[in-house]
Amino acid sequence: MKAITVKQPGGPEQLQISDQPKPEIKSGQLLVKVKAAAINRTDIVSREGKSGYLANPVLGVEVSGIVEEAGENTNIEVGSPIMGLVNGGGYAEYAVIPADRAIIIPKNLSYEEAAAIPEVFLTAFQTLFWLGNLQSEETVLIHAGGSGVGTAAIQLAKQLVNATIITTAGSDKKLEFCRSLGADTCVNYKEQNFDEKVLSVTDNSGADVILDFIGASYWKKNFQSIKVDGRWILIGLLGGAKLEEFNLMEIMAKRIQLKGTLLTPRSDQYKAELTRDFVKKALPLFSIEKLKPVVDHIFSFDEIQEAHRHMESNKNIGKIIVKVD
Amino acid sequence: MKAITVKQPGGPEQLQISDQPKPEIKSGQLLVKVKAAAINRTDIVSREGKSGYLANPVLGVEVSGIVEEAGENTNIEVGSPIMGLVNGGGYAEYAVIPADRAIIIPKNLSYEEAAAIPEVFLTAFQTLFWLGNLQSEETVLIHAGGSGVGTAAIQLAKQLVNATIITTAGSDKKLEFCRSLGADTCVNYKEQNFDEKVLSVTDNSGADVILDFIGASYWKKNFQSIKVDGRWILIGLLGGAKLEEFNLMEIMAKRIQLKGTLLTPRSDQYKAELTRDFVKKALPLFSIEKLKPVVDHIFSFDEIQEAHRHMESNKNIGKIIVKVD
Repeated sequence: MKAITVKQPGGPEQLQISDQPKPEIKSGQLLVKVKAAAINRTDIVSREGKSGYLANPVLGVEVSGIVEEAGENTNIEVGSPIMGLVNGGGYAEYAVIPADRAIIIPKNLSYEEAAAIPEVFLTAFQTLFWLGNLQSEETVLIHAGGSGVGTAAIQLAKQLVNATIITTAGSDKKLEFCRSLGADTCVNYKEQNFDEKVLSVTDNSGADVILDFIGASYWKKNFQSIKVDGRWILIGLLGGAKLEEFNLMEIMAKRIQLKGTLLTPRSDQYKAELTRDFVKKALPLFSIEKLKPVVDHIFSFDEIQEAHRHMESNKNIGKIIVKVD
Repeated sequence: MKAITVKQPGGPEQLQISDQPKPEIKSGQLLVKVKAAAINRTDIVSREGKSGYLANPVLGVEVSGIVEEAGENTNIEVGSPIMGLVNGGGYAEYAVIPADRAIIIPKNLSYEEAAAIPEVFLTAFQTLFWLGNLQSEETVLIHAGGSGVGTAAIQLAKQLVNATIITTAGSDKKLEFCRSLGADTCVNYKEQNFDEKVLSVTDNSGADVILDFIGASYWKKNFQSIKVDGRWILIGLLGGAKLEEFNLMEIMAKRIQLKGTLLTPRSDQYKAELTRDFVKKALPLFSIEKLKPVVDHIFSFDEIQEAHRHMESNKNIGKIIVKVD
């Protein structure tokens, strides 16, 4: 089968279409004829040879497609349209998915739209609710509002618990789109200090939850922005990892909960439980269009290098999709 | 009435017995004839004028005694023996306690023993279970095992969820006592690197939960000691607050949950809910002596300066009590 692999760890130019053996399934797994795959930052880390936790030489951690073959101990029928997280191997004609992570695609969605759902909606769901414990009517600060996880988080926070949402992005076009998804306060970080805005719209009390993709460069402003007893979820380090000074008294005095997380390296069991909870609480809202996958651009399979370059340019709003079949 | 107040912010020599007005109760409160009060580190911070969150000029955040008067909307009878957290004012002949924080003293305990329970057992209960989410059979690293909170945490972790307990202390006498309370592995931090011991007894996986009273000076070793997905609860800074460098990638890669907490400044509602949960899950174990208050020394009311000096010398195992009546 055709699949995308990496010649040498490095830039997008290292991505190639190669011929790989069609994968075989074990008990509890499904073989999927892939229709579409989505690009994620973790794929870039893998392409650069820096991830260390995916054994599969084929990139890609999420797909949509049709079940071609079902192993023992699975309860999804051959022919079903599904989407979900895979343990690598998503950029390919066929992929293996654990059956307890496969999600039946709502009828109103195309395969390209479906491929835009699993990674970002599950990540946003996990960070907002499992780690952030976001409660009804609380305030959440979502950075990188135009990103894949950002656009998913804005929708989930509004539709599931009616949170007050403050988001940041670097262009007015992105912010306008964030507002259309449900963001209440939109801050262009190039024009305004977001911490001042957070304090002004929360009567100086701050945000209950912060989704932080940025890390070091936003640290002090995030600290100013968080409420006493706030939950600060660290899911990316686009602004660097190293703080030159860290005062633990600040963590104690504000009783902050700082939680680092990554979804891809987590266990199969964790992903299955997360998928189950997501299917129960969020999936029905896709059918009635309260939640919508956000597709920025669809590339063909042989445009994989351009797809990666597009993500690295940070200009996308929502997901970048590769059409496989 | 007689009460302990502070002449000038400073050392133990600033503590004095003074005459203060007998407090008056409002709806939802009880007036307690105090039999015993306990010394806490937060009292030292208050004595030094550094706390900022207690308005009462009389020190002391926990008492045992007899209900002398009950306000409206309370359901504890006059004459009941109770213990619990007060909002300051504990070192006195009479103290006010919100009724929903008063705990009926089990019949087998003296007032001095009862005064040794609320602050340390509620703090340990909160950190282990509400914040640390310690689960059955998990491993917990409890620093300062001979301290008030340490001795309470060892007992709660063993009796409530049968955790594997690793504890540190600075003398073999303290460690021997920790073992008698249920600690499985006892490390004298003056003789051995505790992180090496934690890794060796956990097959290199580390501890699920860390109770950290120390902060900066133990930071790197605690980081080595914590398991992936571990919960690191920061409840004291005896080893300093400032880290010179902090790498957020470490927090993400290990998916650590770092949670700062303090009990005294929390809301009345929080303390009431915590007390309710503690009474339900832990209090019955005091009656059957599965849990025991640990009293290091009982001082008389006019020995208050010595009582503070004793705590500051760090030689106590368990609680330091002041007998009021």
